Amino acid sequence: MRIYDIISHKRDNKALTDEEIRFFVSSYVKGEIEHYHAAALLMAIYLNGMNERETVTLTLEMAKSGDMLDLSGIDGITVDKHSTGGVGDKTTLIVAPIVASLGLKTAKMSGRGLGHTGGTIDKLESIPGFKTALSPEDFIRNVKEHDICVVGQTGDLAPADKMIYALRDATATVGSMPLIASSIMSKKLAAGASCIVLDVKTGSGAFMKTPEEAEELSRKMVDIGKRAGRRVAAVISDMDTPLGRNIGNSLEVIEAVEVLKGKGSADLKEVCLVLAGNIISLAESISYNEGYEKAKRQLEIGAAYEKFREFISAQGGSLKEIDNPELFPEAEFKHDVLCKKDGYITKMNAEKIGSSSVILGAGRVKKEDSIDHSAGIILHKKTGDIVKEGEALATLYTNRRETIASAEKLFLEALTVNIEKKEESPLIYKIIS
Amino acid sequence: MRIYDIISHKRDNKALTDEEIRFFVSSYVKGEIEHYHAAALLMAIYLNGMNERETVTLTLEMAKSGDMLDLSGIDGITVDKHSTGGVGDKTTLIVAPIVASLGLKTAKMSGRGLGHTGGTIDKLESIPGFKTALSPEDFIRNVKEHDICVVGQTGDLAPADKMIYALRDATATVGSMPLIASSIMSKKLAAGASCIVLDVKTGSGAFMKTPEEAEELSRKMVDIGKRAGRRVAAVISDMDTPLGRNIGNSLEVIEAVEVLKGKGSADLKEVCLVLAGNIISLAESISYNEGYEKAKRQLEIGAAYEKFREFISAQGGSLKEIDNPELFPEAEFKHDVLCKKDGYITKMNAEKIGSSSVILGAGRVKKEDSIDHSAGIILHKKTGDIVKEGEALATLYTNRRETIASAEKLFLEALTVNIEKKEESPLIYKIIS
Repeated sequence: MRIYDIISHKRDNKALTDEEIRFFVSSYVKGEIEHYHAAALLMAIYLNGMNERETVTLTLEMAKSGDMLDLSGIDGITVDKHSTGGVGDKTTLIVAPIVASLGLKTAKMSGRGLGHTGGTIDKLESIPGFKTALSPEDFIRNVKEHDICVVGQTGDLAPADKMIYALRDATATVGSMPLIASSIMSKKLAAGASCIVLDVKTGSGAFMKTPEEAEELSRKMVDIGKRAGRRVAAVISDMDTPLGRNIGNSLEVIEAVEVLKGKGSADLKEVCLVLAGNIISLAESISYNEGYEKAKRQLEIGAAYEKFREFISAQGGSLKEIDNPELFPEAEFKHDVLCKKDGYITKMNAEKIGSSSVILGAGRVKKEDSIDHSAGIILHKKTGDIVKEGEALATLYTNRRETIASAEKLFLEALTVNIEKKEESPLIYKIIS
Repeated sequence: MRIYDIISHKRDNKALTDEEIRFFVSSYVKGEIEHYHAAALLMAIYLNGMNERETVTLTLEMAKSGDMLDLSGIDGITVDKHSTGGVGDKTTLIVAPIVASLGLKTAKMSGRGLGHTGGTIDKLESIPGFKTALSPEDFIRNVKEHDICVVGQTGDLAPADKMIYALRDATATVGSMPLIASSIMSKKLAAGASCIVLDVKTGSGAFMKTPEEAEELSRKMVDIGKRAGRRVAAVISDMDTPLGRNIGNSLEVIEAVEVLKGKGSADLKEVCLVLAGNIISLAESISYNEGYEKAKRQLEIGAAYEKFREFISAQGGSLKEIDNPELFPEAEFKHDVLCKKDGYITKMNAEKIGSSSVILGAGRVKKEDSIDHSAGIILHKKTGDIVKEGEALATLYTNRRETIASAEKLFLEALTVNIEKKEESPLIYKIIS
């Protein structure tokens, strides 16, 4: 088998055989084919696509290219959740303790923030003492003992995906549905959980700008997961506007705690209940509505919050700040962004607001950048709200005073204020299972 | 300017700006972008194409990437000819002396054979003493003194084309019309002649399998040449069947000498007169028919043969073998291929016959392979001929007896013998100017 022929086949819009895909992935990981071979093939895949069988095979081969986490030693049903990334998306901090409080084995690996989107690992690390780097053994032990563990990647999961993703990132071949779907799912399959719920974001702050794209990606990922023998559902949720009111690492932990205590933003709470409801439905083979109601109850009776405290404590995190959020270190500078005119907020560009919080220090432009856990934005007004000139729209938090002017400028650019109220977009577009 | 954006634009089927093409070519030659960047871009070009302006710009940028031969010191009109490559194609050996005998300054760089196609430089090197490696100064001096010089590439012509071609060869992106056209024309433009005639072959032995493809390529190349200020014409000629009767290096020189002496195969002679007629027409601004008649006359009065002798002698070649072709070293083994049944030859697959002669030692599979100048094939029968069982179809020449069986097998596979005679395909399909 020759890589040249594999490239020619995809160039000529033929479906690759399973053997060809296997050869490509294994030779690339072993360094037996060149980056330029892979680049030519990826561009041909970008432009000519892949059918469902090809996508599933690519996913499985990438999943098998490194460690496959073995969760079979855990009694009970293992569950996982994945978000395609957004602004103000702290759902894992809420959903994971909800479902763990029902005894579902929540074994989750999360990522760090990059660009305008945040990452769960950075948020958790804003809690003093919290450890996100555990060995595979400690990860599994924590799940067994506490029903929940959230870590950064442990072990060498899907190295083929890492290599291919890095090359896609350099060669403008990231935005291909089969490549996105196989990249996400290869890591999820390698991470071992038997029930997986995917939170596919759509809108200005998401990678999928339209609900149609989000649905296409969702169907592909659900299809891959099912063919690989997992129970999978996808929730398509709105990311046109930031989720909740707080953006930034410790600010988002604080908002998550509010929701876990039965308060907090309605939109954030609702998305969390939908996600948790789907996980419970898959894991317990009950209807989605039953799952949703169960999740809601766990929040209401305080069981989710108790599980959250247990989870934080088990990974070395300090409970003092969890119980008294005012004890989280606060940023040195606070700045209110004032409204320029009267009207209704008809649009809040989530990507720009996310980038504004990155400027303040809450995120990274490059992987190597360090993060300021206390930096970020608290929104006082959201899409649909009536606003008056001079009123505070948001408060910016930072330890770098010189960033405030440009962060404020970008924040204001993200906002559209109109005389007429516009119809709001739905929070949940669709559930695919 | 970033290569990432250039790749994205072509991926999204946008036309690249001249600045983007310039940036790509110059950065690639300087090693400032990676092979994988170039590979992704070339696959996007393969699949999404390039418009005429983009193709011209790419050609000019590749031509300017190295030495541009300055022929301005030569009085008179400089002419060049290029063939896209075929089997038994010894036209340069005949066309060049015809037009040089009229005082046209024939400054030609030729290539070596690779795969099933032969190369003029290998053929000339079968003449004892003939030198194909001259400095740019000696090349120009020879043209000034003798009106003709044919060498292997001199100077560092179009290094960007060399790099890009090597990458295309490795990444299955060779067969793209704008890339083929720009590759050929970048070298022709760098080689400096003001009149260029392109012999675009079509059929089983050619890279362009159909006359339609050959016409598309021809139009692109003529367009590029004109936009670059050169006089250009293209002749689309048949390469479904080998040209002439002799295949192999010294065997082809012998057949060329026969034509120059007024004998030889009719098909070979006709293609040469058409090519020479076009060159003369471009250079002297006369009609093609007048050019053709002038070329014919130079052959008939022996002027072309005299110029050929002068040319060979000027580059150190021995005239003894030219005047007495039986003095060329002959291969040790000769083997007649006999016909298996009665009928008409309706098809001679030129690619397979070319490959058969490569097996005998006349050509190269890889660039590094050495060549046996005396090996090859003489055809006794050609497409359209009536044949009888047991009759000799061809004679194989080789110094490696062990190659005869597989060369004969491939030769016979190339032939179709039918009871009914088939209509012959034209020798010249079209002239584009």
